[in-house]
Amino acid sequence: MTTANNGSRALDEKSLVEYIKSTPSLYSVVGESDNLEIKEVGDGNLNFVYIVTSPSGALVVKQALPYVRSIGESWPMSKDRSYFEARTLKEHGRLCPPHVPEVYHFDHSMSLIGMRYLAPPHIILRKGLIGRVKYPLLAEHMAEYMSRTLFYTSLLYITTTDHKRAVAEFCGNVELCRLTEQVVFSDPYKVSQYNRWTSPYLDHDAKLLREDNVLKLEVAQLKSMFCEKAQALIHGDLHTSSQMVTQDSTQVIDSEFSFYGPMGYDIGAFLGNLVLAFFAQDGHAVEGDDREDYKKWILRTIEETWNLFHKKLIALWNANQDGPGDAYLPQIYNNPDVWNLVQTNYMRDLFHDSLGFGSAKMIRRIVGVAHVEDFESIMDASKRADCERKVLNCAKMLMKERRKFVSIDEVISAILHIDH
Amino acid sequence: MTTANNGSRALDEKSLVEYIKSTPSLYSVVGESDNLEIKEVGDGNLNFVYIVTSPSGALVVKQALPYVRSIGESWPMSKDRSYFEARTLKEHGRLCPPHVPEVYHFDHSMSLIGMRYLAPPHIILRKGLIGRVKYPLLAEHMAEYMSRTLFYTSLLYITTTDHKRAVAEFCGNVELCRLTEQVVFSDPYKVSQYNRWTSPYLDHDAKLLREDNVLKLEVAQLKSMFCEKAQALIHGDLHTSSQMVTQDSTQVIDSEFSFYGPMGYDIGAFLGNLVLAFFAQDGHAVEGDDREDYKKWILRTIEETWNLFHKKLIALWNANQDGPGDAYLPQIYNNPDVWNLVQTNYMRDLFHDSLGFGSAKMIRRIVGVAHVEDFESIMDASKRADCERKVLNCAKMLMKERRKFVSIDEVISAILHIDH
Repeated sequence: MTTANNGSRALDEKSLVEYIKSTPSLYSVVGESDNLEIKEVGDGNLNFVYIVTSPSGALVVKQALPYVRSIGESWPMSKDRSYFEARTLKEHGRLCPPHVPEVYHFDHSMSLIGMRYLAPPHIILRKGLIGRVKYPLLAEHMAEYMSRTLFYTSLLYITTTDHKRAVAEFCGNVELCRLTEQVVFSDPYKVSQYNRWTSPYLDHDAKLLREDNVLKLEVAQLKSMFCEKAQALIHGDLHTSSQMVTQDSTQVIDSEFSFYGPMGYDIGAFLGNLVLAFFAQDGHAVEGDDREDYKKWILRTIEETWNLFHKKLIALWNANQDGPGDAYLPQIYNNPDVWNLVQTNYMRDLFHDSLGFGSAKMIRRIVGVAHVEDFESIMDASKRADCERKVLNCAKMLMKERRKFVSIDEVISAILHIDH
Repeated sequence: MTTANNGSRALDEKSLVEYIKSTPSLYSVVGESDNLEIKEVGDGNLNFVYIVTSPSGALVVKQALPYVRSIGESWPMSKDRSYFEARTLKEHGRLCPPHVPEVYHFDHSMSLIGMRYLAPPHIILRKGLIGRVKYPLLAEHMAEYMSRTLFYTSLLYITTTDHKRAVAEFCGNVELCRLTEQVVFSDPYKVSQYNRWTSPYLDHDAKLLREDNVLKLEVAQLKSMFCEKAQALIHGDLHTSSQMVTQDSTQVIDSEFSFYGPMGYDIGAFLGNLVLAFFAQDGHAVEGDDREDYKKWILRTIEETWNLFHKKLIALWNANQDGPGDAYLPQIYNNPDVWNLVQTNYMRDLFHDSLGFGSAKMIRRIVGVAHVEDFESIMDASKRADCERKVLNCAKMLMKERRKFVSIDEVISAILHIDH
């Protein structure tokens, strides 16, 4: 066991076993067995993740140390992120139990979360998308997760008293917000030591991004919304590596970036990463498998996710018309016409926000610091650059023109147009 | 001395003298005199205000009790509002010392502020506007106050770390925010026991408001912005009774509604109350004084306030281009074209927000719970109603059409069109 800075103990396999044995809420999950196996599996950028198994059970232990794992102690990062991850796992889990793994235990001083082990065949969704696995329930599940977590934490459902209390608490997660501000909304649009792209193929494309004044204007608006608009308790990092999936299960993990922000940031993150998966498919196509059918499935999933989300959010809103929410009092919004008007308006704005944020998430994965396996696994750099260029062109168009789109069908058509 | 609920002591004149004598930061202001005179002058809705004078000095003591003064203990109200008032007086005073009175002393447990006495000829601006007094420096002073307080507390100047810390703190002022939500954004648009208007003259107008679906849609958007958009530390109640003025002094007081909200709420409050003053003038006109010249002065002041605010905000922004502000990094916004583009866009949005919020503030003063002396002092109810109807028509038009206005001149023209 080593002592990291500011008092936290970084666990190793031996000390983790001791920790579990002395923690009843964890030890009971593995049947109080003397025979514990530990496997470190963290493949994200930030944290350490252990799978703990015994003959009679398994669990996951996730520990945050006060720096960015993938960089080391030279990039300090508040380990309080663990508190916010546990807080949101529990809150989102309460609101949508089928799609959020259970938290057994949280230890603030250790920045340690003990949670449900998502057994095989659960895999990270991104890996499934690269392996052209279809998930028939993915759109339904993600629409359910997003609609419930966003609705029930917004002023559509809660009072302004509860809202301000929660906003204040999550202001504490500022370091993770600042990381997003930098890597999503800033670095891709300026010269930065952290940026990289498929060079030399995309050198000119990256330069064009840094010189696109109209795009920078849109990015400024999106960044302001990210920093200022406390609309709901968002996951904050809802790309396709934040879901573990099987054919009938979708589990959302890794909520350490959560805070009160714009709903469209979550929706855009998920849809934008599906668009990334779409444009990566050509890079994975081989003789006898052109992936055209799979590409159609991805587009259908994008379409269904938004349409189901729309339907579910409206249904929750209607069902809770007389609920505690302070935003739309029934005594004011008291006839079908005005009710329809405000809902249409709300969903249109949310749609445009989602397209904007989704585009920002796409761009940063092509020219920013953190790339995604969808493209990194395309070995032929020239072929990869062709795919990535389509992402940039699609994202730039969507970000600039997003207010002109009135339905997700039109977005799909635009994506297809860029693909051909 | 009486003991109010939750432990605060409501001061009376005798106990206030004792309090001042035992508080060096106050006692020194009145020259440690044994000869203190106390006068209770609070004419607002919320608090008790005392002027304390001695042969060698004077000061003001303001105390918040845990209820709304004008209603009584039946309408409880957190006395923590006093903390936020003192906090913002000090912060805005630091940012704009010429226009915010000095705070000598704050006692959290007593919810008591000791502050600079604004000696005659200082009067409440609203009274000056009713008495058709011109204030040649008013536009300049208010533009200075608003530009400095809003700029220096926004992400144009501060880091997201400082921003989130301040946002979290001011979330604590939720009770006062909720009061605004109710009386500005809700009650006027529904049947409410608190609403009143010049009846029967405006009965139909009030009914039309409650049935105006398009207006309600706009109000919903403004309310969401008020609740969710943490843009700057706003005063939160910047109508024309929140300034004490002379020919060369403008002092902003009464910041108990302050929190991190949309800048346009402050700008709109001030401009909207000037529009109220404008439409009230006909009700004050008498034989030999048609007030036409004074009405022109009010319109000129509206125009100058916005134009000077615009100029000053841009100047502060340009001067602090390389400052700590996280919103527009100079490495991204790195050429004159893009710099001009984002500033034009920012000011256009702020202009539209200000028109929207200003309209909401106008409407609530005609049909809501709290009216203003500009109209209340017009004794002829029919004449008063004629003035008030113009306010409603002006505000409804501005709120619905605000995005079409590109300059304050156009707003002035529209106001004149409704006036004739």
